[in-house]
Amino acid sequence: MLKSIDINCDMGESFGNWSMGDDEGMMPYITTANVACGFHASDPVTMINTVKLAKQHNVVVGAHPGLPDLLGFGRRAMNITPEDAYAYIVYQVGALQASLTTEGMKLHHIKPHGAFYSVLKANMELAEAVAEGMTKLGGTPVLYWPAPTSAAMPTACKKRGIPVVGEIYPDLQYAADGSLVIQRHKHETDVEFAASQVERYVKTGKVQAMDGTLVELDAVALCIHGDGPNCTQVGAAIQQRLKSIGCEIKPFMP
Amino acid sequence: MLKSIDINCDMGESFGNWSMGDDEGMMPYITTANVACGFHASDPVTMINTVKLAKQHNVVVGAHPGLPDLLGFGRRAMNITPEDAYAYIVYQVGALQASLTTEGMKLHHIKPHGAFYSVLKANMELAEAVAEGMTKLGGTPVLYWPAPTSAAMPTACKKRGIPVVGEIYPDLQYAADGSLVIQRHKHETDVEFAASQVERYVKTGKVQAMDGTLVELDAVALCIHGDGPNCTQVGAAIQQRLKSIGCEIKPFMP
Amino acid sequence: MLKSIDINCDMGESFGNWSMGDDEGMMPYITTANVACGFHASDPVTMINTVKLAKQHNVVVGAHPGLPDLLGFGRRAMNITPEDAYAYIVYQVGALQASLTTEGMKLHHIKPHGAFYSVLKANMELAEAVAEGMTKLGGTPVLYWPAPTSAAMPTACKKRGIPVVGEIYPDLQYAADGSLVIQRHKHETDVEFAASQVERYVKTGKVQAMDGTLVELDAVALCIHGDGPNCTQVGAAIQQRLKSIGCEIKPFMP
Amino acid sequence: MLKSIDINCDMGESFGNWSMGDDEGMMPYITTANVACGFHASDPVTMINTVKLAKQHNVVVGAHPGLPDLLGFGRRAMNITPEDAYAYIVYQVGALQASLTTEGMKLHHIKPHGAFYSVLKANMELAEAVAEGMTKLGGTPVLYWPAPTSAAMPTACKKRGIPVVGEIYPDLQYAADGSLVIQRHKHETDVEFAASQVERYVKTGKVQAMDGTLVELDAVALCIHGDGPNCTQVGAAIQQRLKSIGCEIKPFMP
Repeated sequence: MLKSIDINCDMGESFGNWSMGDDEGMMPYITTANVACGFHASDPVTMINTVKLAKQHNVVVGAHPGLPDLLGFGRRAMNITPEDAYAYIVYQVGALQASLTTEGMKLHHIKPHGAFYSVLKANMELAEAVAEGMTKLGGTPVLYWPAPTSAAMPTACKKRGIPVVGEIYPDLQYAADGSLVIQRHKHETDVEFAASQVERYVKTGKVQAMDGTLVELDAVALCIHGDGPNCTQVGAAIQQRLKSIGCEIKPFMP
Repeated sequence: MLKSIDINCDMGESFGNWSMGDDEGMMPYITTANVACGFHASDPVTMINTVKLAKQHNVVVGAHPGLPDLLGFGRRAMNITPEDAYAYIVYQVGALQASLTTEGMKLHHIKPHGAFYSVLKANMELAEAVAEGMTKLGGTPVLYWPAPTSAAMPTACKKRGIPVVGEIYPDLQYAADGSLVIQRHKHETDVEFAASQVERYVKTGKVQAMDGTLVELDAVALCIHGDGPNCTQVGAAIQQRLKSIGCEIKPFMP
Repeated sequence: MLKSIDINCDMGESFGNWSMGDDEGMMPYITTANVACGFHASDPVTMINTVKLAKQHNVVVGAHPGLPDLLGFGRRAMNITPEDAYAYIVYQVGALQASLTTEGMKLHHIKPHGAFYSVLKANMELAEAVAEGMTKLGGTPVLYWPAPTSAAMPTACKKRGIPVVGEIYPDLQYAADGSLVIQRHKHETDVEFAASQVERYVKTGKVQAMDGTLVELDAVALCIHGDGPNCTQVGAAIQQRLKSIGCEIKPFMP
Repeated sequence: MLKSIDINCDMGESFGNWSMGDDEGMMPYITTANVACGFHASDPVTMINTVKLAKQHNVVVGAHPGLPDLLGFGRRAMNITPEDAYAYIVYQVGALQASLTTEGMKLHHIKPHGAFYSVLKANMELAEAVAEGMTKLGGTPVLYWPAPTSAAMPTACKKRGIPVVGEIYPDLQYAADGSLVIQRHKHETDVEFAASQVERYVKTGKVQAMDGTLVELDAVALCIHGDGPNCTQVGAAIQQRLKSIGCEIKPFMP
């Protein structure tokens, strides 16, 4: 059984006058925030406000960089070059690092968003470029990545000694091969299933797929979403379940 | 007479497929580059390439942050709040700092661009917000500012102990009150006038205005432009003149 | 007493993945939609979907053009030129006209948004440029404008024979001089006050200001907002009140 | 032998303060301009100025719509939906139509740019969406497309009765299978080869590929580029050659 687990959530996804996600409501239930950096969501003011909110809740902060596509929320694959990928990581992470510096905090991790995640999953050349950027940026950020951590991006990180934190997604469904089933429309999460999935994983290292198959994964973190209709209930239920089974909730520390 | 002087130039003002300025041609004639940060010009790839070019030429690098207005090249005043101004400085400077970190370099200074400069010249509340951001960012960047350094922004910096570097503009004209006469259309610079203006300033601390008036200024740097038709000739002539009068060319060091 | 009145509402203010306003909820209560055109809000897909929704509800559609500032929701004054103002109107109105054409509809009116409205209120040179663009675009769109219609923009329209439709804002408050008191934070509207304000205006041609003063205005339309917490209740109450006093609800037709 | 031929060129590809292409220099050598619409290049002011310039030179104007990617100049494939493709065509074409209306001109054709062209070449679902948009926009614009016109997009147009104008590219090289060899870096064009390629095509309906193969194509137009170092020389040489062989230069008229 896992003695402790990290709970992260994507945050700071508002843009200018448009709001998204219940960042304030979710903060009490997480250890770790993945903050958007202005390419697919967020903006300079939102980033600083999100960092301040995390600080108040003692939540550590990582960068959630995306492709430069506000209109598509960074969810549309774009044919970028390794030079682009490297520069997009450096730029976005740097912008967030500065927000953290102004609040006396340090960057904890990097977790690619949406279609940036998708291209880095499959394309080793792009993954190498991003891992190279992470190394050159210094400050030892770790990579957060949905388990299993055998894709191109985590592989490129491991080669360079960058720690990789695998995650499970208790508010999503798994296919029998361990891949995540992404649903486009936000709907209510089955709170009891999510809490049970977490308990199952913490005790056995396995998640249950939609067809009942048990899938072994290499995760030490949970990722939950802050934009579903009952997201704070999901957060509260998972927090309570972890407490009841004696699994400590704390951020991954390398 | 000034024993040494700093020569800076705005650089990295290309955007994606569009080029602007002869950065490569100007590097041999300057000590200090003001690199655009993606809000009014530049982009992540251009920033990294500009930082690498500066490194090759042993040129120190500062941030040239602007208003978020690519279409207007950051030259249109916008009614931003102090919260915006603070966040725009933190975001842009952070993005450039990361580019510098990947090349083993440090941020040298901050010089606001275009209409961001204009609003910070007059509006003390915005200037205080930016100076606060500079202080919180750490790393002791200095402020570059067209002399005289009595405007809102340099005043807010001096209050906080941030060094202010005044500049003269030998390839522009001065009005009798010491203000710069900005011409919208790029035209050939009078090379001999520019070199003489520099010599005059270095020897006497005064520039000659359009009507012949001599105006005393508090500058220790020159700013020259890299997008005029004969910009490299201007750079070469100033370099030669300074050598001939025994004034060393080196970056300002606090 | 007014025999009929037009009720308009700003719509199509979502952007990509971010939603704003209850367009679907408000359609039954309005005659006329002001659709954002992609500069301060909206995007090509949102515009077409908004036009289709209006068509279903037999609501006529006008353009709600803004300044090119998504981040600031078009609410920050920018120092644009008359050439810019002319081109921004032509571009945005043309993009909306095409959306209307694909649905067999015609452009009904133009109503500038936010800070574009503000600069056109005061600056006659910009107002002339926009009125010139409206004339050249053809198709006889009319101008919607908050009463009194004595500002620069409606004046420039009247000079060219473009009809001007004055509006009152029953869900906002008026100062004693007839100017609107804009509140930055959305809050619940006093439904009874809004309905009474409409009844008062329809019967007397006057609105009641915050201090009780009655102010005469030259309006033949109401503008109500679709992003307040009880906006559909306001819409329903106004609709009911107008019916009860025998004032027909129909779009302004020149 | 062809009795007449159309010569088109991509134009209006400047953006704000950044210039691209020698539009003014190329106008005397072309019949037909493909004007960018603000998604990958151009902006409202540039579009109107380009339309005015075309009018002065008696050049007909079509839309050159692209993907929403200014940073990548619309050259990076993006994973858009048919709904996106439809809306992007309607929006961009509408914006240009309005610019034309203000100058008393009509839209002549539509020619997709860069990666928008690439996705429409291969993806029939996207091509159908765009052809549907063209039909609903009315005004009978024709499609311009690099010959052979057997790809998804021209096929979807032909199905709907939209005329398709095939083009050859005399300033590019062809592979033996008739596909174009795109070179990333702009270099001097072999003027004599370009003029001979045009003559060969006009007389025989064939172009010569890099390996000497003669390839038959279904074109009635030439496309030449306005951003190469000797582009106006290429334009002049082709114009002269066509005159010398008695082939009239005039825009395609459906």
